[in-house]
Amino acid sequence: MLQGIGASPGLALGKVLILDNEPLTVEKQTIEDIEVEEQKLLKAVATSKEEIEKIKEKAHVEFGAKKAEIFDAHLMILEDPELISGTTNKIKQDRVDAAYGLRRTAEEFINIFEAMDNEYMRERVADIRDVTDRVIRNIKGVKTVDLSVLEEEVILVAHDLTPSETATMDKERVIGFLTNIGGKTSHTAIMARSLEIPAVVGLVDITENLKTDDFVILDGEGGKVILNPTEEIVKLYQQKKNAYKEERKALEKMKGKESVTKDGQRVQLAGNIGTPNDLAGLQENDAEGVGLFRTEFLYMNRDTMPSEEEQFQAYKKVLETMNPKPIVIRTLDIGGDKNLSYLKIDKEMNPFLGYRAIRLCLVEQEFFKTQLRAILRASVYGNLKIMFPMISSIEELLQAKEVLNQVKGDLDQEGMKYASDVEVGIMIEVPSAAIISDLLAKHVDFFSIGTNDLIQYTCAVDRLNEKIHHLYQPFNPAVLRLIKTVIDNGHKAGIWVGMCGEIAGDKRMIPILIGMGLDKFSMSPISILPARKQMRELSVAECEKVTEKVLSLGSAEEIKLYLESLRI
Amino acid sequence: MLQGIGASPGLALGKVLILDNEPLTVEKQTIEDIEVEEQKLLKAVATSKEEIEKIKEKAHVEFGAKKAEIFDAHLMILEDPELISGTTNKIKQDRVDAAYGLRRTAEEFINIFEAMDNEYMRERVADIRDVTDRVIRNIKGVKTVDLSVLEEEVILVAHDLTPSETATMDKERVIGFLTNIGGKTSHTAIMARSLEIPAVVGLVDITENLKTDDFVILDGEGGKVILNPTEEIVKLYQQKKNAYKEERKALEKMKGKESVTKDGQRVQLAGNIGTPNDLAGLQENDAEGVGLFRTEFLYMNRDTMPSEEEQFQAYKKVLETMNPKPIVIRTLDIGGDKNLSYLKIDKEMNPFLGYRAIRLCLVEQEFFKTQLRAILRASVYGNLKIMFPMISSIEELLQAKEVLNQVKGDLDQEGMKYASDVEVGIMIEVPSAAIISDLLAKHVDFFSIGTNDLIQYTCAVDRLNEKIHHLYQPFNPAVLRLIKTVIDNGHKAGIWVGMCGEIAGDKRMIPILIGMGLDKFSMSPISILPARKQMRELSVAECEKVTEKVLSLGSAEEIKLYLESLRI
Repeated sequence: MLQGIGASPGLALGKVLILDNEPLTVEKQTIEDIEVEEQKLLKAVATSKEEIEKIKEKAHVEFGAKKAEIFDAHLMILEDPELISGTTNKIKQDRVDAAYGLRRTAEEFINIFEAMDNEYMRERVADIRDVTDRVIRNIKGVKTVDLSVLEEEVILVAHDLTPSETATMDKERVIGFLTNIGGKTSHTAIMARSLEIPAVVGLVDITENLKTDDFVILDGEGGKVILNPTEEIVKLYQQKKNAYKEERKALEKMKGKESVTKDGQRVQLAGNIGTPNDLAGLQENDAEGVGLFRTEFLYMNRDTMPSEEEQFQAYKKVLETMNPKPIVIRTLDIGGDKNLSYLKIDKEMNPFLGYRAIRLCLVEQEFFKTQLRAILRASVYGNLKIMFPMISSIEELLQAKEVLNQVKGDLDQEGMKYASDVEVGIMIEVPSAAIISDLLAKHVDFFSIGTNDLIQYTCAVDRLNEKIHHLYQPFNPAVLRLIKTVIDNGHKAGIWVGMCGEIAGDKRMIPILIGMGLDKFSMSPISILPARKQMRELSVAECEKVTEKVLSLGSAEEIKLYLESLRI
Repeated sequence: MLQGIGASPGLALGKVLILDNEPLTVEKQTIEDIEVEEQKLLKAVATSKEEIEKIKEKAHVEFGAKKAEIFDAHLMILEDPELISGTTNKIKQDRVDAAYGLRRTAEEFINIFEAMDNEYMRERVADIRDVTDRVIRNIKGVKTVDLSVLEEEVILVAHDLTPSETATMDKERVIGFLTNIGGKTSHTAIMARSLEIPAVVGLVDITENLKTDDFVILDGEGGKVILNPTEEIVKLYQQKKNAYKEERKALEKMKGKESVTKDGQRVQLAGNIGTPNDLAGLQENDAEGVGLFRTEFLYMNRDTMPSEEEQFQAYKKVLETMNPKPIVIRTLDIGGDKNLSYLKIDKEMNPFLGYRAIRLCLVEQEFFKTQLRAILRASVYGNLKIMFPMISSIEELLQAKEVLNQVKGDLDQEGMKYASDVEVGIMIEVPSAAIISDLLAKHVDFFSIGTNDLIQYTCAVDRLNEKIHHLYQPFNPAVLRLIKTVIDNGHKAGIWVGMCGEIAGDKRMIPILIGMGLDKFSMSPISILPARKQMRELSVAECEKVTEKVLSLGSAEEIKLYLESLRI
């Protein structure tokens, strides 16, 4: 049995699929037999075409014609005679192996396309990389694991999962995630909860401890992985899994009910989402809005910036679907650890303390303005609020608001419509912002406490570093005091205060947050119904007592023990 | 003219020496003429021997026989026939170039030495690396810049300076530093102030804008670099430099005077030091103690852990020299960005938020205990205080104190003496520690506010990242509020509160710190006499007014403007 960090609740029993997602390196080899290499190339091209045809059909059935078109582009590239002749020439003249010859030829193509000042051509670069990598894998006999066309149910095991992997995977057949790195707030963890797939992360070297087709049991709540379980254990966990299912089913009764304490205090229970694809999860879990709509998905895994129109359509879709429920759109939070090829972001020593989010947007203003235009234009289709991330000073907030006003002015001049009453708020996730929340409150309509980062910075602990995971402490009295400060300062200034960090859905934290008077909770959709059930059994009066007691305790350890002893 | 970040005050006019301190890479080349490569090797070995002889003589004169011995070891390695024959064999048999052959042979030697369980042999590994790198440079015709044997005065220009470079450089002939990266609190900046060498850092690409022997003017206060100045400008800066010298001379009068405000409030003005070599600077600047003795120097640039005895001697020397002035020794603050070959520290994504300092010491307890033993044993030679870095929770503090008590118990059992009244304190540099300083104060004898890190975490800004330097804001109201909280909480608990971050010596900050009641200031020794002069012209009453006003202002910008308008 291995112990990791429970990242998404639920149980899974099944076969492992190890995902070897190291970048594909090709080293030049001098060859003897030209013909052998040529044959290798042609055979690999043929195999690749067959694979692509198969994926294309599947994509057509499952996602429609639009998605299938990508694979037509891939096939067209493989049919380009110059790609093949360029490679065979290198094999003959330079006596290099087929993989290296193809990689060099692909690079020549890419250089030409990149030089063209044409969005369409530049987009083809990603296709060339994708498809020639597939051929090179076939040359080398490395199996391309295509997550979008799985044959059977699997538990994915990887060093970590990238956003493109979680986006393209076959969500019906992936029944669990296990990763070496990460914590409760890493991308993989957030995605697992959003997809409602059980997951354990931070397992250090799980990719080495397992091999493809091993049978394991995964306990996403307890963070446990059981290797090669006995039949008895399998039976036990099968029962547990059924019980968990029953429990989730029982929560169905919470749908349509009010999120209200038993003494009548109404709060709002919203969801955090990453893409319009998450709308289904929101609706299934009866979310009362979106407390955090991350917009990074629009910008990542592509070679050009998303156009204003593309962004507008994505925002509009979420607004229309959820109307009249409120949607808080967070402006771009990107930086050194999330790279965009079309925005030159230098590698940084400490990306979490680096050039990112609002810091980057205030420098790359044209970029920022395009997003704000798209958001404002979408505002007429529902109940939209704008939120700036990573504010650490008054100066940054005033600058961001100034840019927003400029964009409004531009839209006015162009006669474009936008809602006149869009609320503007900020994430409180940097300690300085929490400490001066009295000053910041004068300039905004709401606060949303981003506890993932707030805890990280307050305790100076990288939330993804499993080595110091024990110091990432939501219950550190310093964190609780900051949260209370922010709520109190917000209320004094007459604005509402929400929370969109992971702990907003933590059952031990909910009584404290109610006791402190938090107005809006935003969490992974999967946590909404359990939270509603819990709240309806609490009273504000008892929560206030709990909060008072907690704030009188001297350490995270004592606080945790006390809260767990409550069993509320 | 180029604008960077002024890191150490003073002016320098002189010739540039570009330091190319990129790691030396050697790529395998297939060769035709064996004899040519053999000749290259032998010639490079001969040249290297001559160079080493020269350095050895210089080291003997300037640092004594002990230091010169290292170079004897280097010569002995070059005289090892197996090193030469191993290399020529590779040239002949594998037809590789001389540089590659030597690198491979050196690696074979290193593997053998590393396998031996013998401290002496393991120490030889560094020597083999050093000396074979020198020969490889000579093979390649790359000039080895030996900073310890400079022929003339130079202004060093580098991407950044490593601790080993600043430690071995010829401090008489290096008259300035210019670096691409870094901020006011980077290693290079701290070293420059400690050596009283003017420096400008964060110049982005100064290594590309200058070449060796260019003449420049460096203004360490204003952060300016003037390339190829006219004669007139040179004359002007020569005058300024003389005026600066006069001003420093005038400060001599402050020596022996009390650090006291004009209305009679005594404070303590101590120095921050990195090694016992900094004692001269402390004494010259009439420091009233050491508020921060960093102990990392003992651990870095070596292949084995320093023994208890070696540490004991270093601590004892500082204590004896400064007796009876107080010396605050900070236990090891090391982690992912400062690598120790004998402690396996994984590379981290965000080392400033990582496994470091007390976090590492509480895991590597034997390692930690050795340091605590050495510190306690030294305590009988002067006025010693122990300080733990990076405390973020009560739990860590209690654990660290528990380890200290275990070590005391061990020493008692062994009949070893230590002072019974050693004060134990903590750095307040993590926001959570500042916020719960009321709770922490119950368990310590003093606080020392480490503003370099406290600002970094509070504002979520890597203090070495020049791209977001404008957000690293000592005057952010959040930072000032935290400092006040810590001082107030310390005083309420009846303990003293010091500050050892760079802003303790900032003339704009000093009135505020006096107004808040800070008890002890610790700074770069060069700042002590100016600070004393300033304090003697201030009264607590007026400082309290300044503080009150500053705390009522809403932004860093307003606060800075107000303080600069005061001209006190």
